[in-house]
Order: sequence, then structure tokens, then C-alpha cells
Amino acid sequence: MTDLELAQMLAEAAGAAIRPWFRRPFLVETKADFSPVTAADKEAEAAIRRLLDQYRPDDGVIGEEYGDDRPEAERVWVLDPIDGTRAFVAGRPLFGTLIALMQDGVPVLGVIDQCIIRDRWIAGPGQPTLFNGQRCHVRHGLPLAEARLGTTSPQAFDPADFAAFERVRVAARDTLYGGDCHNYGLVAAGHLDAVIESGLKIHDWAALVPIITGAGGVMSDWQGQPLGRASSGQVIAAGDAALAAAIAAGLQG
Amino acid sequence: MTDLELAQMLAEAAGAAIRPWFRRPFLVETKADFSPVTAADKEAEAAIRRLLDQYRPDDGVIGEEYGDDRPEAERVWVLDPIDGTRAFVAGRPLFGTLIALMQDGVPVLGVIDQCIIRDRWIAGPGQPTLFNGQRCHVRHGLPLAEARLGTTSPQAFDPADFAAFERVRVAARDTLYGGDCHNYGLVAAGHLDAVIESGLKIHDWAALVPIITGAGGVMSDWQGQPLGRASSGQVIAAGDAALAAAIAAGLQG
Repeated sequence: MTDLELAQMLAEAAGAAIRPWFRRPFLVETKADFSPVTAADKEAEAAIRRLLDQYRPDDGVIGEEYGDDRPEAERVWVLDPIDGTRAFVAGRPLFGTLIALMQDGVPVLGVIDQCIIRDRWIAGPGQPTLFNGQRCHVRHGLPLAEARLGTTSPQAFDPADFAAFERVRVAARDTLYGGDCHNYGLVAAGHLDAVIESGLKIHDWAALVPIITGAGGVMSDWQGQPLGRASSGQVIAAGDAALAAAIAAGLQG
Repeated sequence: MTDLELAQMLAEAAGAAIRPWFRRPFLVETKADFSPVTAADKEAEAAIRRLLDQYRPDDGVIGEEYGDDRPEAERVWVLDPIDGTRAFVAGRPLFGTLIALMQDGVPVLGVIDQCIIRDRWIAGPGQPTLFNGQRCHVRHGLPLAEARLGTTSPQAFDPADFAAFERVRVAARDTLYGGDCHNYGLVAAGHLDAVIESGLKIHDWAALVPIITGAGGVMSDWQGQPLGRASSGQVIAAGDAALAAAIAAGLQG
């Protein structure tokens, strides 16, 4: 089984663990960072980890819910079983399961899977991004003034980052709120032009890199640098390099 | 055919007009109020109006895209073919078709239809709210500090309204952004506790009233008064009267 085939199997397993909980009663716990977590998050990550133990016992794993297992291995799977737990808790089917494979610290494979409406983006290694099985492409060539932005929540930014975001937002055509990882899929599919966020952890962004770049887009930090293990969690995803540069310039003020 | 049966038929016709355009190339025009409109909005409203002409030729119609036709009639259908056009344009399946029947100025029937993921709420006349064919109920009894709020966009508020909203937001547990009319359905289904918005037009809120109240909730303006033709467009939807009152008090400062 190739890594890509395995990644599809992992997404299926996570979806099967999550779907029975969607819009059903469950307990929402609050983690140390005030983010919510549910049994669905935990069961989905556990389901993925069982398959990785079985099929890739030598690989490392970094997961949002169950921590790090050999994070310094050459090959590391990076997991966020439910990105957008607030949306999940509210019965809104825009959360997603994020699965990445990092090779020597570089994300080479990514999956965004929305298991309720069954939107799935998958990319790599060395393969272009597929959206529900079809090649997809970013939208190119729009100036910032015509770009449609996405971002999940104003409260996801600290005050300085929010001021920077606002400078760019007012220069863009339009901003769509909410959406979590699904917004990055919409950039890869050419429906949104850019996403600007901060406060992201490695499990939030690792899967997005192959998906955005494999659809012809650009993914960087707010300084325009590639994302890496030491990244601050400030993220730009954009349809092309010129738009990413305009956004980075606006964020720097 | 009862009004409720007709409303279902209208929602089906709108969905059939919208689905071929979803995530396909189309022209986005900008209206005088800077909101976007597409061929999908226009075709969906036209499809609904054709059926109303056929089955209820004596009723009035108020529609977002094609204006008013006998708006002072005893019975008036109020239509928003795509509430959440920004989401629709971005390929996000959380927009909705809103259909209301007003009798002597009071909304007595409402439909929220999401035609891609096929979430449909329908209520009235005199009938409780059904969510995908099942009775649904709001969540009762949560204080504001534990309530999960929804609102579509910070930019939908004018500055004074935004300051009022922020007072309530920081007192609540959590706020989910984006979502448009779909958020009100989530309140009716007991997944979200309240929605606070302003700047709504009659076609944005008329359908929501029977759906929220038919699920046991409360819908009012920011002063706690029932919504009517003269309403300012400031809207509270909440799971119970105590929460609605706490929100209204916070909004008044």
C-alpha cells in the first residue's frame, strides 16, 4: 500500500469514528488551551493511530489529542482528527480531519477530509491535489483588491496579529468567516483566493502545505518564509505568489 | 396542496435551480448595497415565483432579487433565494434558500433549505419545526456564560451595533462565525444557543421566526420586541426567553 492509499484509509477510519457523534449528544471538555475536545476527536485519532501502528510501525506520529510518538523520526505523520471542533460541536459540517506525512521535516502528503458532506482534498508525495478525485487548481492573477479572503475567527488572532490582519482585510474585496481547514480546500479548488490565520499549530497547517502547493498555490508564514517545525503559526495560503507577497507586505505594515 | 406542501415544492425548485451553479464558473455582480448576486440567485427566485404565480396567484410576493409584488396583500410570500451569497460564491455549502409566508404581517410559515448538504428546516402554519423530517428542539436553560453564539460576520454590524455585540460576545462561552441562515437552523436543532445579527432585511429574517419559535425558541429584535415590517434588522434568536433577555440586556449595555 502506498502512502497515498494509506492516507485515504486513515481518512476513512477517522470519518467512520466521527460520523456517529455528529449532531448527537456528547460531552465537550475544555483543554488547557481553552479549546474544546470531544470523544469524537479522541476516537478518530485513536482509529488513525491503530492503522499507523499496523501499517507504518517505524514512522513517528504527532497528534493533537494523544501527543508525540518519535517526532524526530525521518517520516512523521501529523494528525488533527477534528480541525474545527467548535463547528463540529455546533453541528456545522465544515470541520475536517487533517492528515500529513512529513519527510525530514517537510510536509510531502496532505489530506483534508470533511466526512459529513464528503469533501476530500488529497495531495502528494509528488502528486497534484485532487478534490473529490479530480485535479483542482487555485485561481491565479487576482490583485488583493479583488481577492476573496477566508479566516476562521477574529478571536484566533492576538491583538497585534489582528491589527495586521485588519490592514489586509480592508484592502481585499471580501472576507468569509468560519470554515477552519475547509477554507484552505476552497483556495486549492479556486473558489477562495487566500486564507490568513495565526496561532496555528503544526497539526493545523502541515496537511495544508501539499494541498495548496499541489494545486498551484503558495503557502508561507507571514514573512513569506516556508512553514517549518519552528514556525510561529502565522499562515498565508494564496492562489499565487504575487497575491501572497501583497498579503505578506500588508501584514508587515 | 397545503401551504406547507407548496413551501416544500418551492424549496425543491430553488435547489434544482441552484445546484448546477455550485462550484461552477459564474459571473458575480455587485448590487447597489455592495452585496454580491449571481445567476443562481436570480434563477432560484424566478423558479419560486413561477410556482407561486401558478398555485397562489392572489398572494403577494416580496423577493430579494425581483422586488415586491402586492406586498400589502393579506398573504405575502417572502423570499431570499440564496441567503449567504458570499458563501455560495466561495463554494461553501452553508448558504440557504429562505421562504416565508406572512399572514397579516406575521410570519406563519418558514423554510431554511440548504440544497447541497440537504439540511432543511420547515415550520408552520401552526406546525412545529421539522429538521430533515424530524421534530427538533432548541436547547433550554443555559446561562449566557455557557451559551455558544453564532454570527455571520463582524462586518455585518455598523460600529455601534458591533460594540454592543462585542459586549455580549465576551460574556458568552464561545462564538462561531460564518454560517448565515444555517446558524438559525442549528439553534432550532439545539446545537447552537443563540444568533445575534443586525442589518437583516425582511427576506433575511421572516422565515427564521416560525422555525425558531416552532422549535421552542425565542426570536426578537435587540429590544426584545417581536420582529415586524418596521423592524430595524437587529435580530436575536435564542433557545429560551431568559437567554434572549440576557442578550438583549447586554446589547443595550
